[in-house]
Amino acid sequence: MSAKSGRVLLAYSGGLDTSCILAWLIEQGYEVYAFMADVGQEEDFKAAEEKALKVGAKKFFLEDMRREFVTELIMPAVQANCIYENVYLLGTSLARPVIARGMISVAAREGCDYVSHGCTGKGNDQVRFELAFYGLKPDIKVITPWRLPEFYTRFAGRQALLDFAEASGIPVTQTKAKPWSTDENLFHISYEAGILEDPDTTPPADMWKLITAPEDAPQTPENISIEFKAGLPIKLSVPDAKKEYTDPVDIFLALNTLGRKHGIGRIDIVENRFIGVKSRGCYESPGATILRTAHVDLEGLTLDRNVRALRDQFLTIEFSKILYNGHFFTPEREFITSAIPASQRTVNGVVRLKLYKGNTVVIGRHSPEGLYDEQESSMDVLGGFEPTDTSGFIQIESIRIKKWAQANIRKGQAGVDAADVYGTRL
Amino acid sequence: MSAKSGRVLLAYSGGLDTSCILAWLIEQGYEVYAFMADVGQEEDFKAAEEKALKVGAKKFFLEDMRREFVTELIMPAVQANCIYENVYLLGTSLARPVIARGMISVAAREGCDYVSHGCTGKGNDQVRFELAFYGLKPDIKVITPWRLPEFYTRFAGRQALLDFAEASGIPVTQTKAKPWSTDENLFHISYEAGILEDPDTTPPADMWKLITAPEDAPQTPENISIEFKAGLPIKLSVPDAKKEYTDPVDIFLALNTLGRKHGIGRIDIVENRFIGVKSRGCYESPGATILRTAHVDLEGLTLDRNVRALRDQFLTIEFSKILYNGHFFTPEREFITSAIPASQRTVNGVVRLKLYKGNTVVIGRHSPEGLYDEQESSMDVLGGFEPTDTSGFIQIESIRIKKWAQANIRKGQAGVDAADVYGTRL
Amino acid sequence: MSAKSGRVLLAYSGGLDTSCILAWLIEQGYEVYAFMADVGQEEDFKAAEEKALKVGAKKFFLEDMRREFVTELIMPAVQANCIYENVYLLGTSLARPVIARGMISVAAREGCDYVSHGCTGKGNDQVRFELAFYGLKPDIKVITPWRLPEFYTRFAGRQALLDFAEASGIPVTQTKAKPWSTDENLFHISYEAGILEDPDTTPPADMWKLITAPEDAPQTPENISIEFKAGLPIKLSVPDAKKEYTDPVDIFLALNTLGRKHGIGRIDIVENRFIGVKSRGCYESPGATILRTAHVDLEGLTLDRNVRALRDQFLTIEFSKILYNGHFFTPEREFITSAIPASQRTVNGVVRLKLYKGNTVVIGRHSPEGLYDEQESSMDVLGGFEPTDTSGFIQIESIRIKKWAQANIRKGQAGVDAADVYGTRL
Amino acid sequence: MSAKSGRVLLAYSGGLDTSCILAWLIEQGYEVYAFMADVGQEEDFKAAEEKALKVGAKKFFLEDMRREFVTELIMPAVQANCIYENVYLLGTSLARPVIARGMISVAAREGCDYVSHGCTGKGNDQVRFELAFYGLKPDIKVITPWRLPEFYTRFAGRQALLDFAEASGIPVTQTKAKPWSTDENLFHISYEAGILEDPDTTPPADMWKLITAPEDAPQTPENISIEFKAGLPIKLSVPDAKKEYTDPVDIFLALNTLGRKHGIGRIDIVENRFIGVKSRGCYESPGATILRTAHVDLEGLTLDRNVRALRDQFLTIEFSKILYNGHFFTPEREFITSAIPASQRTVNGVVRLKLYKGNTVVIGRHSPEGLYDEQESSMDVLGGFEPTDTSGFIQIESIRIKKWAQANIRKGQAGVDAADVYGTRL
Repeated sequence: MSAKSGRVLLAYSGGLDTSCILAWLIEQGYEVYAFMADVGQEEDFKAAEEKALKVGAKKFFLEDMRREFVTELIMPAVQANCIYENVYLLGTSLARPVIARGMISVAAREGCDYVSHGCTGKGNDQVRFELAFYGLKPDIKVITPWRLPEFYTRFAGRQALLDFAEASGIPVTQTKAKPWSTDENLFHISYEAGILEDPDTTPPADMWKLITAPEDAPQTPENISIEFKAGLPIKLSVPDAKKEYTDPVDIFLALNTLGRKHGIGRIDIVENRFIGVKSRGCYESPGATILRTAHVDLEGLTLDRNVRALRDQFLTIEFSKILYNGHFFTPEREFITSAIPASQRTVNGVVRLKLYKGNTVVIGRHSPEGLYDEQESSMDVLGGFEPTDTSGFIQIESIRIKKWAQANIRKGQAGVDAADVYGTRL
Repeated sequence: MSAKSGRVLLAYSGGLDTSCILAWLIEQGYEVYAFMADVGQEEDFKAAEEKALKVGAKKFFLEDMRREFVTELIMPAVQANCIYENVYLLGTSLARPVIARGMISVAAREGCDYVSHGCTGKGNDQVRFELAFYGLKPDIKVITPWRLPEFYTRFAGRQALLDFAEASGIPVTQTKAKPWSTDENLFHISYEAGILEDPDTTPPADMWKLITAPEDAPQTPENISIEFKAGLPIKLSVPDAKKEYTDPVDIFLALNTLGRKHGIGRIDIVENRFIGVKSRGCYESPGATILRTAHVDLEGLTLDRNVRALRDQFLTIEFSKILYNGHFFTPEREFITSAIPASQRTVNGVVRLKLYKGNTVVIGRHSPEGLYDEQESSMDVLGGFEPTDTSGFIQIESIRIKKWAQANIRKGQAGVDAADVYGTRL
Repeated sequence: MSAKSGRVLLAYSGGLDTSCILAWLIEQGYEVYAFMADVGQEEDFKAAEEKALKVGAKKFFLEDMRREFVTELIMPAVQANCIYENVYLLGTSLARPVIARGMISVAAREGCDYVSHGCTGKGNDQVRFELAFYGLKPDIKVITPWRLPEFYTRFAGRQALLDFAEASGIPVTQTKAKPWSTDENLFHISYEAGILEDPDTTPPADMWKLITAPEDAPQTPENISIEFKAGLPIKLSVPDAKKEYTDPVDIFLALNTLGRKHGIGRIDIVENRFIGVKSRGCYESPGATILRTAHVDLEGLTLDRNVRALRDQFLTIEFSKILYNGHFFTPEREFITSAIPASQRTVNGVVRLKLYKGNTVVIGRHSPEGLYDEQESSMDVLGGFEPTDTSGFIQIESIRIKKWAQANIRKGQAGVDAADVYGTRL
Repeated sequence: MSAKSGRVLLAYSGGLDTSCILAWLIEQGYEVYAFMADVGQEEDFKAAEEKALKVGAKKFFLEDMRREFVTELIMPAVQANCIYENVYLLGTSLARPVIARGMISVAAREGCDYVSHGCTGKGNDQVRFELAFYGLKPDIKVITPWRLPEFYTRFAGRQALLDFAEASGIPVTQTKAKPWSTDENLFHISYEAGILEDPDTTPPADMWKLITAPEDAPQTPENISIEFKAGLPIKLSVPDAKKEYTDPVDIFLALNTLGRKHGIGRIDIVENRFIGVKSRGCYESPGATILRTAHVDLEGLTLDRNVRALRDQFLTIEFSKILYNGHFFTPEREFITSAIPASQRTVNGVVRLKLYKGNTVVIGRHSPEGLYDEQESSMDVLGGFEPTDTSGFIQIESIRIKKWAQANIRKGQAGVDAADVYGTRL
């Protein structure tokens, strides 16, 4: 078979899989450039570069995308309280658009004909990367080895990869592979596959890499405060450490440190992947968990009730789904996020928190907005409030309910004697 | 002024307010029956009865509504993951329909012309009670002293109530009133008003009545497991205590005991009342918090993705709003809850949990349903999965995205160079 | 009783009700300024001014609000396809924010202490006006005679108003009152009350004021075309009349003329008012009906599927509810409409229509956007499309459905034999 | 290549495509049974049977599915007001589940190893059929010739099919193929492809097969009435014809006759297919259009406001999407439709309609439900209504709006002078 040709920009991780893919692409006749995005993962980028070049990459690009990751992806998700299936804070999903944009940018600049990645054929990340590629550059060609029969049948097990690595001169670390996979960035680390595929297996204590177990966290609580402007954190105060942070990246990293120390931000779930397969995942999102608690709390004090209800039902849920399914560079994402600023205009103020052994406890909050009014809220003073107004309110609210009840009674379906109306008995 | 007449069924608590209302109603010329619902609150019902009769009630009714509270209100809310404004589990809201139904039932049986309650004019509970009354018996007449000018101007402060109590022979306990109000039932206790009206005031440690502070909870975690059928808990196993519970009320009460012991279920929020006033509330919901964590987790394993998404966006949010706003006996509640059984048909299985100092940690789950498939989910084996199918899936998913990107590029709005498309920079 | 005092700006219509209110306010001791908004209704404003001054108004203000009505209220509603309860195009609702803003503006400029209106106590308009007043000027004082017992008991029937008019020197036209009420502006005319209160009474043919009955409309169809930019009409071409319109107000008025001529835009419904009462209303909205048909059609050609679906479910429905309920000057309106521009960015193109006896028939449409692609859509050519991709798409889409079906079969609930799964048999 | 083997049940239409597929499957070594569903299309089933057997089918099955099509698919869609993208009544989508269920039932009974269909690779119907197959019988094997390269490359144009037909002894009718495709059943007929692929081409007058052009419809209107029970039509009265219909199928067919006569039910749209391609389609749905108008109208009189709003936003939209995308045999369909009965309990009554040249005009409606109350609705009598209650209602409704306006004013963002708050100027 004649060699394929052209230049490929490969999303390279430094690991066995993408090193083998790199070598395989060269074997197929491609010229390969290796690409790494620094999104805050703990990684020896220098060693990865050396390895890529040794395996045969013609060039290596390391892009520092930490700031845009924080400011353009993480912070809007914080503003919108994004969460998937009630629990997952979307750490991997959030990094993908930034990485994909970095790759498309480098591919355009460096004249690459193709981009390639090492994602498997069953996961979410292949979808997220490729839909982002197509949304940014619709004519880009994508090589996906783990979905090409000539690749996945040839490398059907780990041993085949190891053999190929040896034959191709790819250095293999002697450390035993962990019985799960991880993905890390400055938002979180994820664990899946391997022994975690049995959803009834408790993750071993030594799996969790970032966050101290609540049992081992300090016996003494630590108080902090976070100030928000338009729903965005603008100051983190850590009195015990006599520190204040105002840069968004610094704030996020400092919250990570605090969450890791105090055992905050671990979850273990079974989630529904975009392709319709259920999957078990464990995640550590220390700073994001604290930030979410604080932001949600401040909205109680500062966000109008109806805006909050509409935002929760539509913006939060739809933006979260968009992020999870990799639909970031789409018209629906543009549509949905266009409503974020109007939703956060009044979310200004300070939340005070106590961190203790897995718990993020709100201990107070204040705001200059004035939507909360002690006098008006008070049960002890009238504060300009006319109690008779509520009588009118309730009478008007009850008009259609009374009509319905009258109709029920006429039909013999009155609520009093119709316990079965509930339909909910055990 | 001539005396009013007729028989009133008064929701009686045994406290100063409703005792004064009782005496005042009699003073106005009404015959008063006192009504108490046992919804699991800690209360000396015998003493309350004696007090009511002493103050002048002609009859006293104590209705034990604990079982119907658990089976008809709490459990459907558990099935639907009900929550208000992301945090509040609706403990007070859930009790109101049961109490109102009990009152309407007694009022009908005992020939009462009126029902009455002691709720203030700014809160949610007046609305919940009255809309429930009207939904059950649309021609019921309701006397609401705290919204009647002749009452609330006469009893403008606590001292006026105390004076009236003394004059009316109402026994007043010498214990100093706490600087907050509470409402308790077997689901939760709430704290509001008084010193809590400043949302930046941390609740004093001795306010929290039910739940041990996480700092004081046991140093040793405790493992339990909960079995669900159709989304309803049917067995709680507590191995350390060598106990199993299968009755729904027993299960709920035992979970309360566990939550109280391990510091689980406190929240402190600013919420939006139905009348549009913001209000600060603190709540302790020990068992409900554990049960919610377990139920949500099991849904990950057993609920179809699309059912879950639709249920979260519509049923959960709308049913929660209905409960909070007191719209239980309404056509929209009947409509919304009619979809619960179909949503929970597959939610069968067991969740294993670790309880520790405020944390409810899922440590495993299993189900006979078979919607989770290890082989299919596995990253290590193909399990009958064709990776090339995903290529087709992604190509089809990208059709409209590519079209949109092409249009953007033609117009010079391509994603790559259009960072401002985000509109989310700090 | 001592006279009340202060200056009132009264929303004046020139009719019997508001003339009596004007006189009554003066009788109560107020100084009254009369306000009329020209929102395109057919009205003899000069005669109304003379009448107001004759009755005793100190000043009279006529504000021409037609342009802002069209550009700031009607056009966003067209962009968002606003509709209430599937049928009503919101003509009255749309005018209220503009009129209320005009009043608050004049009241502020002219130093009025109060505003007042003649809306009844059961309708929507009182709510729309007053919530708009409070949203613009929260400390404004509003006098609502039809909700004041001293007014509505004194003027309990039409004769009492006539007697008062005579006594107060208010000129009363000799024309017999029509047995229904109307509200007119350049968007529509509404009919309600009187003989229409029986929902089974067919409106008499001579009630309909604006639109020719379809039976009497021309036998010959007329073709027109409308060009949109960002979802807004920018050119109307009427070839039969050799006319083109490009100004938004001119476009709307010309569409009105066309709709009136061709019998387009009548409806007759029972709707649910904000206060929970059902109400029968008839409406004529000629131009708006044509414009809506054209806009919805163009979105088929130019709007992304997912944007359209999200917009329909959230923006259209919520904005329509907001408009109907008079919540225009609220944070939720600001939130919801902030998403309109992003939803309409691609809605550019031309729709060609045939108008004929009540029918608005789309006969063609084109757009420069390129989201529709004949080649791609074609059933006759592949157009770069790989049919095998769809196989992959369907396989992936079926993963969770197969799993569910397998579980059903295991439980004996397989779809084939379970016709009752439908639950929908007659 | 060795012959494939096994028995295939082929969805057969009698046309050129499926006759060639039949012959091709036999050529490939399969035994083929032909299946036709009678869903009310105009078809010579006898001729089709003869042709199938002549081409080589071993057996032929004609299943009469009209009744279940009407009662199990169409009627629930009527109850839920199903509509796709504001305009399309889903006629093709509704038939697919019934046909697929018929096929799976025959395939199971007759021991077929495969099912097959002649749908193209770009349309919706392939998806609807196959997802239904998998939802009913997850292990069914499906042969999709138009997505198999060995088929679609061999039969790349119509001439290749004609040549193969001639060689295979397939009778070809001499009638010139129409320059569009159609799909017909008792709900509707659809037209797409061919000359319709240019969305600016007006469909030729002779394309429309079922419905008289409004221009050619009778000059005299015809009045009818429809009675509903639980949202389902139970009696159609056609006084001019002195006819009444009470059987659901009869009602639907009689409405079809009326709609066809009076020019009611044509649409011409560009819609978004499930695979993300935009597509132009024309549809004639005569009876369904009349029925929808009547049902929506009756809901105004009989459905609670909040039920209607929730049903419109969730049930109608989600069920419509489910139907369009072929997700009928899925858990989400089961979930969504489980709420239909509770939504329609009160939708009882009669709607009177006038049919005239494309218009379905509601001329009256009545109901025994009593949710509409003339006294209560009346603008002329109080009817037990206290106007002062509305004052209280508006005061309470305005609480949060005033707070927001006060905050705006403090910040200098007051509504009066901030026309740009709208963000909607042309």
